[in-house]
Amino acid sequence: MRILGIDPGSQRTGVGIVDADAAGKARHVFHTALAVLDADSFPLRLKRIYDGLCAIIEEHRPEEAAIERVFMARNPDSALKLGQARGAAICAVVSRALEVHEYAPMEIKQAVVGGGGADKAQVQHMVSVLLGLQGPLQADAADALAVAIAHAHTRATVGRIGIPRTAWRRRR
Amino acid sequence: MRILGIDPGSQRTGVGIVDADAAGKARHVFHTALAVLDADSFPLRLKRIYDGLCAIIEEHRPEEAAIERVFMARNPDSALKLGQARGAAICAVVSRALEVHEYAPMEIKQAVVGGGGADKAQVQHMVSVLLGLQGPLQADAADALAVAIAHAHTRATVGRIGIPRTAWRRRR
Repeated sequence: MRILGIDPGSQRTGVGIVDADAAGKARHVFHTALAVLDADSFPLRLKRIYDGLCAIIEEHRPEEAAIERVFMARNPDSALKLGQARGAAICAVVSRALEVHEYAPMEIKQAVVGGGGADKAQVQHMVSVLLGLQGPLQADAADALAVAIAHAHTRATVGRIGIPRTAWRRRR
Repeated sequence: MRILGIDPGSQRTGVGIVDADAAGKARHVFHTALAVLDADSFPLRLKRIYDGLCAIIEEHRPEEAAIERVFMARNPDSALKLGQARGAAICAVVSRALEVHEYAPMEIKQAVVGGGGADKAQVQHMVSVLLGLQGPLQADAADALAVAIAHAHTRATVGRIGIPRTAWRRRR
């Protein structure tokens, strides 16, 4: 099962792809950070995110997608910017008919580091270790790989204990 | 010049299209409110906005697009939701190679009612009057038509006084 992880942002969008086996073990396929700051306008940044993700999906053919749930953005202005980037990313994914699964930050840390209290640096370090990557890993790409690993882990766990997991909780 | 106005929202996205003459007078072409609440998940709501706008652009072939600038969202949670809807809408527009122009709420009121202090009901009423529409007009569709009218008005003014207007201020 090939999984696409996304960490959207209005400046950089992290993208990570892993192959997961039935036991939930993830193997690295691809990662990048789509930098969009040099686009000529904010709409064109969103287009870069959308087009960039569509091209990556086209090339690597992931079967499911995972994204971090946003619990509380810092302030309305940054929430709006993040939301726009997230909207562009999710549009790209659903336009390619991929299911999107959301994970809380705590679930991602639990899957990658084994504890919900880990800091960002620990998560990045463990992503490199788990996937056997050499050299420094860009932070947003690491977060994208982390959510993909969390999804790989959850799929395997859910498979073992037989609980159907809904793709995205219905919200009002 | 055919202008597409959009009023994005996570529950309903207003869409309005007008034809503008050189003097800035707008003629009604089309309006609707894309209701997305009944979509099965939040990502599918965004897909509805994206697909819905793409279909409308395909059918009516607007040449430019206008959207209301968000100054201050009420809170981070609603800003995130609005941002995602806005991201999906802007993606649809830029994927069809339309320029997106942003207008402050005050500029829209000024164009439609002639004063920046007008309330929402006044704006809706004046949109109907200016475009010669009969019967009640859905609120989000009215807001979308209002921003299209504001763009028609600004284009004509800018044309007369010869100031080039940039499509979207570059932001960091």
